[in-house]
Amino acid sequence: MINVIYGSTEEGKKYLDNLRDREESVQKDVINTVKEILEDIKENRNEALIKYINKFDSENVNKNNILVSKEEIEQAYEIVDKEFLDAIKLAAENIEFFHEKQKRNSWMITKEKRVMLGQNIRALENVGIYVPGGTAAYPSSVLMNAIPAKVAGVENIVMVTPPSKDGSINPNILVAADIAGVKKIYKVGGAQAIGALAFGTESINKVDKIVGPGNIYVAMAKKSVYGYVDIDMIAGPSEILIIADESGNPEYIAADLMSQAEHDRLASSVLVTTSKELAEKVKKELAKQVEALSRKDIILDSLKNYGVIIVVNNLKEAINMSNEIAPEHLEVCIENPFLALGEIKNAGSIFLGSYSPEPLGDYIAGPNHVLPTSGTARFFSPLSVDDFVKKSSFIYYSKEALFDVGNKIIKLADTEGLTAHANSIAVRMK
Amino acid sequence: MINVIYGSTEEGKKYLDNLRDREESVQKDVINTVKEILEDIKENRNEALIKYINKFDSENVNKNNILVSKEEIEQAYEIVDKEFLDAIKLAAENIEFFHEKQKRNSWMITKEKRVMLGQNIRALENVGIYVPGGTAAYPSSVLMNAIPAKVAGVENIVMVTPPSKDGSINPNILVAADIAGVKKIYKVGGAQAIGALAFGTESINKVDKIVGPGNIYVAMAKKSVYGYVDIDMIAGPSEILIIADESGNPEYIAADLMSQAEHDRLASSVLVTTSKELAEKVKKELAKQVEALSRKDIILDSLKNYGVIIVVNNLKEAINMSNEIAPEHLEVCIENPFLALGEIKNAGSIFLGSYSPEPLGDYIAGPNHVLPTSGTARFFSPLSVDDFVKKSSFIYYSKEALFDVGNKIIKLADTEGLTAHANSIAVRMK
Repeated sequence: MINVIYGSTEEGKKYLDNLRDREESVQKDVINTVKEILEDIKENRNEALIKYINKFDSENVNKNNILVSKEEIEQAYEIVDKEFLDAIKLAAENIEFFHEKQKRNSWMITKEKRVMLGQNIRALENVGIYVPGGTAAYPSSVLMNAIPAKVAGVENIVMVTPPSKDGSINPNILVAADIAGVKKIYKVGGAQAIGALAFGTESINKVDKIVGPGNIYVAMAKKSVYGYVDIDMIAGPSEILIIADESGNPEYIAADLMSQAEHDRLASSVLVTTSKELAEKVKKELAKQVEALSRKDIILDSLKNYGVIIVVNNLKEAINMSNEIAPEHLEVCIENPFLALGEIKNAGSIFLGSYSPEPLGDYIAGPNHVLPTSGTARFFSPLSVDDFVKKSSFIYYSKEALFDVGNKIIKLADTEGLTAHANSIAVRMK
Repeated sequence: MINVIYGSTEEGKKYLDNLRDREESVQKDVINTVKEILEDIKENRNEALIKYINKFDSENVNKNNILVSKEEIEQAYEIVDKEFLDAIKLAAENIEFFHEKQKRNSWMITKEKRVMLGQNIRALENVGIYVPGGTAAYPSSVLMNAIPAKVAGVENIVMVTPPSKDGSINPNILVAADIAGVKKIYKVGGAQAIGALAFGTESINKVDKIVGPGNIYVAMAKKSVYGYVDIDMIAGPSEILIIADESGNPEYIAADLMSQAEHDRLASSVLVTTSKELAEKVKKELAKQVEALSRKDIILDSLKNYGVIIVVNNLKEAINMSNEIAPEHLEVCIENPFLALGEIKNAGSIFLGSYSPEPLGDYIAGPNHVLPTSGTARFFSPLSVDDFVKKSSFIYYSKEALFDVGNKIIKLADTEGLTAHANSIAVRMK
């Protein structure tokens, strides 16, 4: 079910290089369909929007009920499981707490001769959050995408999500959105929802940024509108890497590998350990625990294709390998996990010790679960408050201060052949 | 030469909506050429790289001299104009000073039961900077792209730039790169340079992020490799917007409009003023000053096509219009420019008062001149130290802390149908 490699870092690296090629290929007809839908929405606005909703999702949605009503949200609170409600409230509280610490102030500095320089940091004004429907409707994702925007100070946070055939929205999603501070929820999904958020229609105002996961049509639509509005990263297949020494608990480690593997058949679960004995025990535990899990088939598939246990000589090798792979989730199950923190260069989220399993971070600890996938942790970061602000520099120079540097500016402008730049200084220095 | 609109915000907005459609269309054959070059570099590495350099730029470059030597840099220092050298050194110093203020620390928080949460902020390890050759070889751009990376703590900053026919590099560029902290400079430009940075060759190591402006081939190549590595924003046509009341100086304002207009025929220069009189005076000044400028033809073209003076009723209207347009550069030439700062929502860089003209910011003040163009200041920001770091979250929970929230995690995982997630908690709580 899962390969065990007893080998050097090199051998392991070779095996894992294949991970980078997990991307799904995008069919030409998907690209064309998305293009067509976006153009239609841009031109025909609500008319096109309602047409696609009726065609793809529900015939019960029209321009008068596309916006989820206050009553629908109140009703959702009554329907949902009370334990779920308690749990989602705690999650929201913890996520808000953590993201509050990410906030930054605008700042300025003064220099001599009354020079002032600074940076204004402001929240985006309008943000749209995409939430998938059906079995991929995850209330936790609603929190993780909306709360950083709310903490940043975004005034208008709206959400789009495909309705069921009867025109309703999953009540768990409605409740999560309400708790997370979403102002308006629209019953629309797919490329048409992205088009509406990017271009605006009579019912839906255009936004500055679109975030949130979606299927291939949604991902392609987001890519298409990028630049016209901002988008978040487009997530690739996800992964967990666990570094463990002989102190690792095989039962826990096997469970954590499978919690990643159950996501989809392209998910990758990797254990890098210094202990042969642990490797064998984890393999046995996987076989044992998988039997009771509802997503057994997916788990077995992804463990077989993209799962691996690599036995290395020492922790240094393990950490080097992890830095090469730059995993989305990294669990560090070693004697003193804190000592590894300084050595970890590339990872989306780091889980320290045996009682900090990935699902703790997925749901309740507070840090974001929207993380860089497929090795992009080398340069991308978890979703954060930073993703919902924009910065403007500002510059004030007094006449005297400008005169001090004027000739140097003219010299640089002339060197670059930009004489009108030089002229802009020269007219002031006459 | 330039249109004057005496009108409401609405009329002006309509006129300016056209600005958003300034994008150059990309020819199909450009896309195909770029794709071919990138695939060739990925597969055949140095062999392909040298082939393209010899074909497009210089036959004098081979694998033994593609890296600029220490001697070449020393020689450059001897060749360059001493006043230029002084000016570029001052610019570098000011840019470094401003960007140092942007640095952020990693942070952590502790909660009860030994819970620790935090965010590790680390510099990217490898960054590649693209610098155009020929007439677009701007030493100021080298500083603006490299210094934020250096301040962030990037270990390996490399530069690529196309050589002249004889295989040499503009000495001004070499000196700027050396001052800015670039470690290695390679004599290669175009899509092949981007391919080498993204995939690596025997001569050039692969990087984590590529920044810097380039022609359409470079821009397309950057777009293609995005996700495989990170890239900066792809700049569109640029613009200046000047807000002025009756206190504005028509001579200065005309000069500043033209300093933007000289960049290229798609550049846009906009004056929004509360004073009819000023509008007329600026128009006259434009006609007068343009005669002495070397890039007169470009200036007249861009003023005619994308330049406009809009007379509005009051400052509030002017600022609203500016917020709608979200200009790359915004000059505020009014009685008390600081009072406008809080009202300005969208702008790349803000220049306050009559002695803070755009070229001051382009060259020497310190804030970055790589700015969001074409209205993207609604959601994008100036290039900064933030663009050269990545963040990792970390989570530590003790056994007791996990037990406190375990059942809530299980509830959320079960609600989402992710039973292996629930299992990861359950095995620990047995």
